[in-house]
Amino acid sequence: MSAGTIALLVAYDGSRFSGFARQAGDIATVQGRLEEALQVVLGRSIETVCAGRTDAGVHALGQVVSFDAQGDEPPSAKLARSVTALAGPGIVVRDVLAAPAGFSARFDAESREYRYRIVGGNTPPLFLDRVAWWSKGDLDVDAMREGASHLVGEHDFRSFCVTESAEDRSTVRRIERIEVAKAVELGEECLELTVVGNAFLHSMVRVVAGTLVEVARGRRGSAWVAEALGAGRRAAAGPTAPAHGLTLWLVVYPDGLLVRRT
Amino acid sequence: MSAGTIALLVAYDGSRFSGFARQAGDIATVQGRLEEALQVVLGRSIETVCAGRTDAGVHALGQVVSFDAQGDEPPSAKLARSVTALAGPGIVVRDVLAAPAGFSARFDAESREYRYRIVGGNTPPLFLDRVAWWSKGDLDVDAMREGASHLVGEHDFRSFCVTESAEDRSTVRRIERIEVAKAVELGEECLELTVVGNAFLHSMVRVVAGTLVEVARGRRGSAWVAEALGAGRRAAAGPTAPAHGLTLWLVVYPDGLLVRRT
Repeated sequence: MSAGTIALLVAYDGSRFSGFARQAGDIATVQGRLEEALQVVLGRSIETVCAGRTDAGVHALGQVVSFDAQGDEPPSAKLARSVTALAGPGIVVRDVLAAPAGFSARFDAESREYRYRIVGGNTPPLFLDRVAWWSKGDLDVDAMREGASHLVGEHDFRSFCVTESAEDRSTVRRIERIEVAKAVELGEECLELTVVGNAFLHSMVRVVAGTLVEVARGRRGSAWVAEALGAGRRAAAGPTAPAHGLTLWLVVYPDGLLVRRT
Repeated sequence: MSAGTIALLVAYDGSRFSGFARQAGDIATVQGRLEEALQVVLGRSIETVCAGRTDAGVHALGQVVSFDAQGDEPPSAKLARSVTALAGPGIVVRDVLAAPAGFSARFDAESREYRYRIVGGNTPPLFLDRVAWWSKGDLDVDAMREGASHLVGEHDFRSFCVTESAEDRSTVRRIERIEVAKAVELGEECLELTVVGNAFLHSMVRVVAGTLVEVARGRRGSAWVAEALGAGRRAAAGPTAPAHGLTLWLVVYPDGLLVRRT
């Protein structure tokens, strides 16, 4: 018997964890910490599902983590506070929402938004050092935007996938939106690359960032991004940008599926 | 013989240091690290002066640090890079400027701008944990602004000074501007209290922040800020807000005094 699903909106500092997914042994993972905290609070073993399995070092502002509820487990602000306290430093449960029975944070997600921060110039970032990649030197934002425009829409992103995919697994994904914005965060200038899509291949946003920075630095022309996409092999695209510049920003679900009960 | 003065624009993460001012022994201070780095780069012992001696835990985005140059020591971007590299983690020299002989980062400053970040609500800050004070619960921004308005102008700020001042030292200071702005930094909501003045007493901005947060939380009315100011004793004002929410943001000098030579 299921009383529905509970969905946690979770932020974490990726620098403290070996990724989201639980691993054997003493390795610090977000899922491991969350499930241990939930077990203490709810008094039973909990298996969670997340919207996007982030790699080691990748941050999240809006990760969504779901698990089956039992009848006496209403989603509550108290649950958020308890799990935040018990999960330890680096994890914050920002909200707790209710979803219907059978809801999955992973399979019901309509779109995912990632942001990748890049600091240019000759001065390393100070306050942004944990959350932005310092790519030393001048960055041409217009060229970067022009390069990014080639990636919008439905494409085979095999060139932008780190793990070799089995031949029978599709590497076609749809990027709905890519934006490159100049931003000031904590007083420091940076570029924020926003990528929105239905789903992403392994390390896809980091390869997109690494590829667009090649263009921003003038090592490649913006048309090269289209060539890299068309080539269909990883070596054709740019390097994989470092994990710490990436944040899982937001996950969107169909209207009305997640409800605040508290 | 002096060939003029060199002024460094310096950012640092206060959480790594026991304040700006050099101390005896192995204690990590910003001044100690900068002077050691300068000694290595310039091959002679250097004594620096700063615009604002920040306490342990207080950050800086725009600290200015000056020292007398010798003839063969032009301010250069290379000097900034070398000192940043040698000073170690937590310190970044953002710029190097030239000033006339006799210039002092402290005595020639026209005004100083500090910012104090506060996070309200029931969720602790994650990415802002190093640079913002979490004052749990609702914060009334309008009441806080109303309270702040009483502090603008020239006043005796004895109630807002942590160190007992000797009777013969004036505690009169002039606050030119106070603003309370809602901001989003790194995706997290916060309040940014900006205080601009000619000079500040010891911990003055932190006592101002602690006092205004009492008003924002509804523990005191906004008129109480004027009463606290008028009382002329430390106990009349609110608590000293924690160091890690405070950043020395900007120091202003007379037009044309600092020149970029590189």
